[in-house]
Amino acid sequence: MKRLAILGSTGSIGRQTLEVVRAFPHRFEVVALASGRNLTLLKGQVREFKPKLVSTEVGAEGERIPKARHVHIEEIATHPDVDLVVVATAGKAGLAPTLAAIRAGKMVALANKEVLVMAGEIVTAEARKYGVEILPIDSEHSAIWQCLRGEDKKEIARLILTASGGPFRLKSAVQLAAVTPEDALRHPTWQMGTKVTIDSATLMNKGMEIIEAHWLFGVPYPRIEVVIHPQSIIHSMVEFADGSTKAQLSLPDMRLPIQYALTYPERWEGPFRPSVDFSVMGSLNFEAVDLQRFPCLRIAREAAEKGGTYPAVLSAADEVAVDLFLRKKINFPDIPKLVERTLERHNVVNNPSLEDIIAADAWARGVAVEEGVR
Amino acid sequence: MKRLAILGSTGSIGRQTLEVVRAFPHRFEVVALASGRNLTLLKGQVREFKPKLVSTEVGAEGERIPKARHVHIEEIATHPDVDLVVVATAGKAGLAPTLAAIRAGKMVALANKEVLVMAGEIVTAEARKYGVEILPIDSEHSAIWQCLRGEDKKEIARLILTASGGPFRLKSAVQLAAVTPEDALRHPTWQMGTKVTIDSATLMNKGMEIIEAHWLFGVPYPRIEVVIHPQSIIHSMVEFADGSTKAQLSLPDMRLPIQYALTYPERWEGPFRPSVDFSVMGSLNFEAVDLQRFPCLRIAREAAEKGGTYPAVLSAADEVAVDLFLRKKINFPDIPKLVERTLERHNVVNNPSLEDIIAADAWARGVAVEEGVR
Repeated sequence: MKRLAILGSTGSIGRQTLEVVRAFPHRFEVVALASGRNLTLLKGQVREFKPKLVSTEVGAEGERIPKARHVHIEEIATHPDVDLVVVATAGKAGLAPTLAAIRAGKMVALANKEVLVMAGEIVTAEARKYGVEILPIDSEHSAIWQCLRGEDKKEIARLILTASGGPFRLKSAVQLAAVTPEDALRHPTWQMGTKVTIDSATLMNKGMEIIEAHWLFGVPYPRIEVVIHPQSIIHSMVEFADGSTKAQLSLPDMRLPIQYALTYPERWEGPFRPSVDFSVMGSLNFEAVDLQRFPCLRIAREAAEKGGTYPAVLSAADEVAVDLFLRKKINFPDIPKLVERTLERHNVVNNPSLEDIIAADAWARGVAVEEGVR
Repeated sequence: MKRLAILGSTGSIGRQTLEVVRAFPHRFEVVALASGRNLTLLKGQVREFKPKLVSTEVGAEGERIPKARHVHIEEIATHPDVDLVVVATAGKAGLAPTLAAIRAGKMVALANKEVLVMAGEIVTAEARKYGVEILPIDSEHSAIWQCLRGEDKKEIARLILTASGGPFRLKSAVQLAAVTPEDALRHPTWQMGTKVTIDSATLMNKGMEIIEAHWLFGVPYPRIEVVIHPQSIIHSMVEFADGSTKAQLSLPDMRLPIQYALTYPERWEGPFRPSVDFSVMGSLNFEAVDLQRFPCLRIAREAAEKGGTYPAVLSAADEVAVDLFLRKKINFPDIPKLVERTLERHNVVNNPSLEDIIAADAWARGVAVEEGVR
């Protein structure tokens, strides 16, 4: 019986994590759930999974969830009855509880990109120090992790992240200036949360995944490549020193990488079998990324290679820019412009402390809003 | 320093094995070479690699190779100075030395399909008994072996062997009746020996690979599938219990799986880097096998599932049929007919001994010749 804490249980990854748990009722125990403000959904989850502990952003002052003890999210992340903490929160909300879980020696299954984008160096150093494994839930990083099973990381030649290319892959620069949030939210292959869906349309998502991959697998940035693969069947690849490449494939279904992180090192036969029928599939296509139309990938890579507080600024500025786009305050091509202008104004702190990172995040949000109304 | 014996050193796989050795002169020592009748090439190999021992089919009675001790091939396969025996012989010639090597506790790198097709049960049982690992050199089986690194064989859901489809993939049944040996020898993606190239055109090769995969990885026949993949970039795949699939990819270059078997469990960076540039590659295509036009795959699978001496008869009858086709005695569509008629006339021996298998092989050759002249 694996005892789980799920942070962000009402979000897209949180709900799918509970679908996996529901599929194996005798093998998982949900000890704790933490959510934001969706109390209606959380109440239903508490009724079904009966966690001992809950945490909500409004819990302390606001409405109470019956039959569950209300605690702070960090108590959940460090509770002695928890074996594995699933970090399915969004934005910077996951950073503090992830560090708390690591310092309490918990295994962490990580879906919250910003944790490693903002503070990859600190988080991975703490994980090494406390002997904790960080298990990726992103489909791309799960693919790489699966390809690396039984392999020697020193023999990695390059990582090849695949990208669907998003809904605007075939649009011209002129067309991109006119796309709406509704267009951007129609992702061709994946069902995901709002922020990550827009980030997929700009390819900022893939830029952040380069940073995550760097910290998770210890591979230098120049050896992490991105290729467009519109079908999202190959989730990513690893090329080794001898020229051999391994790939992990499935139909696009986030429950597979979630389940893999939850059952690792085992693989369980469950009701989700996103296996590919190759004889009817026809073809898998690949093409290079067009950095002219999708500059976010270049901007993210530059921020990553410069390091220090730049990736935290990238992440914060992007969060503001996506929000402004969703509220129709800026156009789609303004997203990279706003992020880049914010990065240009930043005075980097190298080897930042957690406080430096949080300060850079706050600074970037203010500046990005300023840039957004110019 | 890994000390090698290479059986079949003048054939296609043998020559490419020596290319790999040449690329790492300080890491391999060639202790012994065995060849058939191509003494001119063998002499050159002996001059370059200076093996202590040689064996040739004509060596004892015929011309001597200077500066090398002539011995029987089984002495080479079992010599105390040898760590790894590369079995790159063709047809049934590899069976006895493979068994001898296993019984002497040598690691065996196996390229000779017929060894496992004829006697898979005996060979794998002996390997278990003597604690010997059989390392596959076929690109398909190397791919599966690589995908299984770090995985639990009990969690295999299915093996998916890829097949280029050969030079006649797009030909109609009528067109197939008119193809010549010259047409059949023009393989679209792989450079290989004559027999295996014709077997690729009929798909008998893929049928034999199903049998090899069954014995190498312990997977039941109904869970070993074949899909046509004309580019030969994905060399094969494994689907696991959770619905996740892993694939191994490279440009088609036999030196990669040969090198992998020679350096396993390490991967060495060498001059052959058949890595794939996905952004220029465009697409990977897949289609179902047409068993009407390519009945060899069905015939091989039936012989495999019936077991006993049937696979040995399949292999022997196919060798005769391919030879008759190459000598223009029969047409291309006669190859499966001749093999199937031979199988139909066979009185199977179940749980055969090695003697039963050798007897079935001899019987099948006689009957196949008879069927070929009808």
